[in-house]
Amino acid sequence: MKPFTKEISFLTNGKGLIEITQKVSEIVRQSGVLNGIVHMFVCHTSASLLLFENADESARDDIEEFFDRLVPEDDPWFSHSFEGPDDMPAHIRMALTRSSESIPIKGGRILLGTWQGIFLFEHRATPHRRVIVVTVLGE
Amino acid sequence: MKPFTKEISFLTNGKGLIEITQKVSEIVRQSGVLNGIVHMFVCHTSASLLLFENADESARDDIEEFFDRLVPEDDPWFSHSFEGPDDMPAHIRMALTRSSESIPIKGGRILLGTWQGIFLFEHRATPHRRVIVVTVLGE
Amino acid sequence: MKPFTKEISFLTNGKGLIEITQKVSEIVRQSGVLNGIVHMFVCHTSASLLLFENADESARDDIEEFFDRLVPEDDPWFSHSFEGPDDMPAHIRMALTRSSESIPIKGGRILLGTWQGIFLFEHRATPHRRVIVVTVLGE
Repeated sequence: MKPFTKEISFLTNGKGLIEITQKVSEIVRQSGVLNGIVHMFVCHTSASLLLFENADESARDDIEEFFDRLVPEDDPWFSHSFEGPDDMPAHIRMALTRSSESIPIKGGRILLGTWQGIFLFEHRATPHRRVIVVTVLGE
Repeated sequence: MKPFTKEISFLTNGKGLIEITQKVSEIVRQSGVLNGIVHMFVCHTSASLLLFENADESARDDIEEFFDRLVPEDDPWFSHSFEGPDDMPAHIRMALTRSSESIPIKGGRILLGTWQGIFLFEHRATPHRRVIVVTVLGE
Repeated sequence: MKPFTKEISFLTNGKGLIEITQKVSEIVRQSGVLNGIVHMFVCHTSASLLLFENADESARDDIEEFFDRLVPEDDPWFSHSFEGPDDMPAHIRMALTRSSESIPIKGGRILLGTWQGIFLFEHRATPHRRVIVVTVLGE
């Protein structure tokens, strides 16, 4: 049970969800681990991870709009604003979702539910390169 | 340190928190693991996990009401609505809580705090069968 | 790959974020683990964990204010109020952040991003002693 670690990176295209399920599945296959857990970690404070409905794009549109409304860019009381109006909302949206996520592996397969996909959630308005560290634990 | 995995399922009864602490503790006992971590994963996009105050039921009532108010069913801007008015709010409430949770094990016992219980959080209005995968890592 | 577990505790000073990155790094060093994962767990229902921007204090001020506004103390509909007006908001703020968090380890070093720090998030108004269980898995 030696941990298998791999870094992957994605160039985002402004705010929104990017599905990374296939990349993570590939790493699980490469690891040769049949039973255990795959752990994902996003090394940033304005991007996050989310397991979300991956069948219907309208669900993704709605959750992006929900966060735009819950944490609007133009809140006048933000003091942390020197990196632009999207920066502080990005940190808050990250805090409300996840920096790490983990999923069980059985028989070499990630045990995601039928409608679950793994998503990188970009919270900044401009494109960013985001690094995710994937660690497979098990045997 | 061979991972011990077990699936459990619960029939929910509409929105709300269901305590599953005892079921998870039983699986930790069955695993024989004395030191390590128990990991839980909910295979759904409209139910989630939450560690929450398990002594006073009024705290559970209040958090359910909080989510009803934060993510109301009748928001006119939802586009993902073909599965009913409770579906999109369910996905958002899941996103704001947790798909996976994990707790340390020491001396064969889950190290929950005095007031902590493990809860399955159902976000749909009608009963659903929910599957949770419990993985014990350690020795 | 024997799990290495250590409990650390902090005396908080009312609501706010306390950086604990250095303490966690020390435990990873003590464990001797070179590759794997460090897992942190807060044993309380009114305190939580958060990976957050650790460079600029104004970002911390803003997220504390965000939670003060999102979950105000004086909401008249709270029923769980016998422990004071800050108690129920504390449980909700905990539910919206994290009870457990985990970060990959590579070459004996925690793979935090440049701007990421590990924070204990106290949600009660008065000082509390908070216990965090740190578990290192790997080899």
